[in-house]
Amino acid sequence: MTDAATLTRKADFPGLVAPDGSPWHYLDTAASAQKPQAVVDAMNRALGSDYATVHRGVYGRSAQMTLGYEAARRRAADFMGARSENEIVFVRGATEAINLVAASWGMANIGEGDRIVLSTLEHHSNIVPWQMVAERTGAQIDVCPLTEDHRIDLGALEALLTPRTKLVSLAHVSNVLGSVLDARAAADLAHSVGAKIMLDGCQAAPRMALDMAALDCDFYAFSGHKLYGPTGIGVLWAREDILDAMPPWQGGGAMIDRVTFENTTYAPPPQRFEAGTPMITEAIALHAAIDYVDALGPDQLFAHESALARQLRDELRSLNSVTLFGPEESAGIVSFAIEGVHPHDLGTILDEENVAIRAGHHCAQPLMDHLGVTATARASFGLYSDETDIAALLRGIDRTQRIFG
Amino acid sequence: MTDAATLTRKADFPGLVAPDGSPWHYLDTAASAQKPQAVVDAMNRALGSDYATVHRGVYGRSAQMTLGYEAARRRAADFMGARSENEIVFVRGATEAINLVAASWGMANIGEGDRIVLSTLEHHSNIVPWQMVAERTGAQIDVCPLTEDHRIDLGALEALLTPRTKLVSLAHVSNVLGSVLDARAAADLAHSVGAKIMLDGCQAAPRMALDMAALDCDFYAFSGHKLYGPTGIGVLWAREDILDAMPPWQGGGAMIDRVTFENTTYAPPPQRFEAGTPMITEAIALHAAIDYVDALGPDQLFAHESALARQLRDELRSLNSVTLFGPEESAGIVSFAIEGVHPHDLGTILDEENVAIRAGHHCAQPLMDHLGVTATARASFGLYSDETDIAALLRGIDRTQRIFG
Repeated sequence: MTDAATLTRKADFPGLVAPDGSPWHYLDTAASAQKPQAVVDAMNRALGSDYATVHRGVYGRSAQMTLGYEAARRRAADFMGARSENEIVFVRGATEAINLVAASWGMANIGEGDRIVLSTLEHHSNIVPWQMVAERTGAQIDVCPLTEDHRIDLGALEALLTPRTKLVSLAHVSNVLGSVLDARAAADLAHSVGAKIMLDGCQAAPRMALDMAALDCDFYAFSGHKLYGPTGIGVLWAREDILDAMPPWQGGGAMIDRVTFENTTYAPPPQRFEAGTPMITEAIALHAAIDYVDALGPDQLFAHESALARQLRDELRSLNSVTLFGPEESAGIVSFAIEGVHPHDLGTILDEENVAIRAGHHCAQPLMDHLGVTATARASFGLYSDETDIAALLRGIDRTQRIFG
Repeated sequence: MTDAATLTRKADFPGLVAPDGSPWHYLDTAASAQKPQAVVDAMNRALGSDYATVHRGVYGRSAQMTLGYEAARRRAADFMGARSENEIVFVRGATEAINLVAASWGMANIGEGDRIVLSTLEHHSNIVPWQMVAERTGAQIDVCPLTEDHRIDLGALEALLTPRTKLVSLAHVSNVLGSVLDARAAADLAHSVGAKIMLDGCQAAPRMALDMAALDCDFYAFSGHKLYGPTGIGVLWAREDILDAMPPWQGGGAMIDRVTFENTTYAPPPQRFEAGTPMITEAIALHAAIDYVDALGPDQLFAHESALARQLRDELRSLNSVTLFGPEESAGIVSFAIEGVHPHDLGTILDEENVAIRAGHHCAQPLMDHLGVTATARASFGLYSDETDIAALLRGIDRTQRIFG
């Protein structure tokens, strides 16, 4: 990938300009991605000249919006290698997707003495919903440890699994370290004891080609705003036979078949899980985001961002007093610490140089505990990132070290 | 209000133009409102040049977005006459708000043999969540009947209440009929037996001045997209002491205090109920929508739309073969039937005349059963509606009657 290509991409993103008009070195894409103009434009049209609600209008524009909304569902299905668009439930984001699976599938299928396997590196959104299920049902949570280089240890996973394990829920890519899970191997292990597997795909969906059939998982979740799309929307994918058997979670309009005070019957999935007026314009803008990402090619994005991560790790390793976390091979996310400098101070000084990183626990406090820190500095790449961003980060780190040195 | 004023307003709404460039007579505002350009522009900036995530960034733009997100919360609090912005929980929409109250407050406070009072005219979103609570807890649902002119009968409500009634949940304004509830009287009745009261404010928030203190209710919900704002966001207001005591519903980032695998503690409200990355740009665009509505004045909007409803009812009454539903005084929503013409056929013919109405059960099947129909035709006004819209509707009805006559 040439610099020229990346520069062209940067120009597609109205957010990549600092208030003073100079380039903004945005290295916080793992928290939320900037949006290409095509996404902003799609939102614009959907909220403006094209606006109507979906599913219930007898007039043409509502029928058009319904087509647009359902086309977004098909596009998401295609992007993920789903067998059918009926496997795609639009949710607010990955957090809601995991809560939906926990409250619906989990409460129906997990009982006292059953076991749920998570890992040390999970995001809080893939911990707390399962703690709630465990608390209500009397199930136990098992925590899969990490390898020395901070990947989920599949050998340890195998040893943890029992016939009482009902679910394994793991990050496909760590939001702190960029560690990539061998998801198919994890799925095979889970299935070998009859457990289901859920993958938190928040960081994988924007960086890797997804193929639900090849992964052979049961549930998969991602957030639109991390995939260069709008806030307020995400996708839960689940195998159609599993969704079919799941009880409703939220009740309301659109998810019902027929309502009487005596007896209410429910619509089939995915509608059963989409109560109320949906995120109409968000779905249409997400469609534009998927088109944008797919045109560049997920495999190319993975190669691009993992190369940048490698380059940054090499540069940081050459500096004094820098600790690197996570594996050498990362999907574009690098966490590190500088001796004697709190990550927040680093972040604040970098901000003055138009460099945005994240400093904190990254909603992964158990991982922080494991790493023996309260926070890390994290630089995360996106499809628009390039060497100029790394250079700006390194200049800022140099300045920080001189200030604190 | 002069026609000139309304015409000026129409020009603010990019959605009010038909594909052929002529005016689109949009009479489906009760389903979803068109958005003023100010809302589209606010969304544009938030998704584009201003974009960053909230709450966790150490860089300036994230701090700015956090200020914008929290300013939207304060604006919503002010708009509703809340005592504090901590009483405002951002949700996907009113449906999610009701589900949140049902799953959190309801499951913690409603038990076997307790009673929940709803009414015959409720939207499915204010029925199904309570049926789910009743099914899980063994509580009973009591249905408050309507007066002859299809308002919630407060005399009957009083007779239904018992010391076992834990909750009364009612539409502030009916989405089918425009019937306005005397909410303060209903609240006083509910409180007289120690019950809490929830109001579904979806149709009231865009049409009436809201004052939580004066209403003296416990929970209030509305959807942003019906208040001229974006999809994917809504507001749950609840009294601070009630919210404080409510257990979390969805788990994830942002709603926690501290996460370990042994013991997770939760943040105070409203954060406790906002798991995951919130609807950032939607909140900012909702702020713009509230500014727009508030500048016109909710009392003025109520007068404007109820006058249009009165005018339409008078015109329809003068036609042969038209049945009018609901009370004479309506908050801008008129449901009717034309003998021998299915509402869907009417809707389809009107569409050819650039007139959009709703035909169907309006997510209120128990009310349809009560009215003895499977569907009604519904014309609903918005702040941009005027006599030209009524005239276009009447021309379309005339043509329909000639076709079917």
